[in-house]
Amino acid sequence: MADAALDALIDSLRCLPGVGQKSAQRMAYHLLQHDRPSALRLAQALETAVSEVKHCARCYTFSHEPVCEVCLDEARERQLLCVVESPADQAALERTGSYRGLYFVLMGRISPLDGIGPRDIGMSALLERASDGVVQEVILATNFHAEGEATAHVLSEQLRARGLKVTRLARGVPVGSELEYVDLGTIAHAFMDRR
Amino acid sequence: MADAALDALIDSLRCLPGVGQKSAQRMAYHLLQHDRPSALRLAQALETAVSEVKHCARCYTFSHEPVCEVCLDEARERQLLCVVESPADQAALERTGSYRGLYFVLMGRISPLDGIGPRDIGMSALLERASDGVVQEVILATNFHAEGEATAHVLSEQLRARGLKVTRLARGVPVGSELEYVDLGTIAHAFMDRR
Ligand SMILES: [Zn+2]
Ligand SMILES: [Zn+2]
Repeated sequence: MADAALDALIDSLRCLPGVGQKSAQRMAYHLLQHDRPSALRLAQALETAVSEVKHCARCYTFSHEPVCEVCLDEARERQLLCVVESPADQAALERTGSYRGLYFVLMGRISPLDGIGPRDIGMSALLERASDGVVQEVILATNFHAEGEATAHVLSEQLRARGLKVTRLARGVPVGSELEYVDLGTIAHAFMDRR
Repeated sequence: MADAALDALIDSLRCLPGVGQKSAQRMAYHLLQHDRPSALRLAQALETAVSEVKHCARCYTFSHEPVCEVCLDEARERQLLCVVESPADQAALERTGSYRGLYFVLMGRISPLDGIGPRDIGMSALLERASDGVVQEVILATNFHAEGEATAHVLSEQLRARGLKVTRLARGVPVGSELEYVDLGTIAHAFMDRR
């Protein structure tokens, strides 16, 4: 029971969001008791993902290739740039099928309490990206809670200072919620009503 | 976003108990966005645990060595054998400090609905272990829900047929609960009142 390898596994599983000591122990026991092949498959998948999943040079989302499929898609409206916090939010927007422009993924949001400022998210890269002369409108689709709103506020000021039109997803999205958990219809409506 | 390595990681994370598609996606994004070193550490811990964590030849619990520390402990009362479903349950009993005998870990329980019968858990190994001539009493400490009770019932009949004294943890343990989540005092009491 006092096994170093088992303890190390339990400890490592706690790096997963939402997994505490008790869940980590349950996961470790489950894998070792019932599903060692899956444990090895997960180990391999983690290593492969870490080595192969990179960031798109243009929009910064996860990508296998130097530039992602969305950024390369000629059918996209290149004058529209939608700013999201994460690839999960981008995926949620894509699933609605209601947006045909391009994206920029911040990979975070401003959070003064956690010491995350504008420099810790991709703000300067966004300002450069949005100033390419093709983008005419930046749609801020950060989440609708305090940190997402603060992020949108800061980005909005900076983008407007550079002469860009800035809009925000309409508040059809329930306040306080995370985009990736919102139903598709609400998001589609919020795209239409952007202000 | 349609990245094979990312999809494989999300899929692999679903092997963890309690992790569905949504949580798996959140975990994968979190690791790749914010914590790649932890992802690699987890991969390594999984591989090490799978290769190094084996089963004790006597009690079948997880063990680095061929025979675990508890089984080798000369201070343990060798005439008492406590049967548990999992190493987690064994750990819960050990934490009470109220039991000084040996253990046998079934690594499962009888569950007709899942097609798990007496042969799929360590019953024949238990019968052999309990018939060593030293064990005088087998304490059944399977969980107190339907499947655990059914398991205890089947084991009890087989062990009694071999002339062994069989007891069950007293029902001080709340019915319907999992041992590993029960408070220590209740378990200690249940050991004393075993019947
Ligand atoms: Zn891109
Ligand atoms: Zn042992």
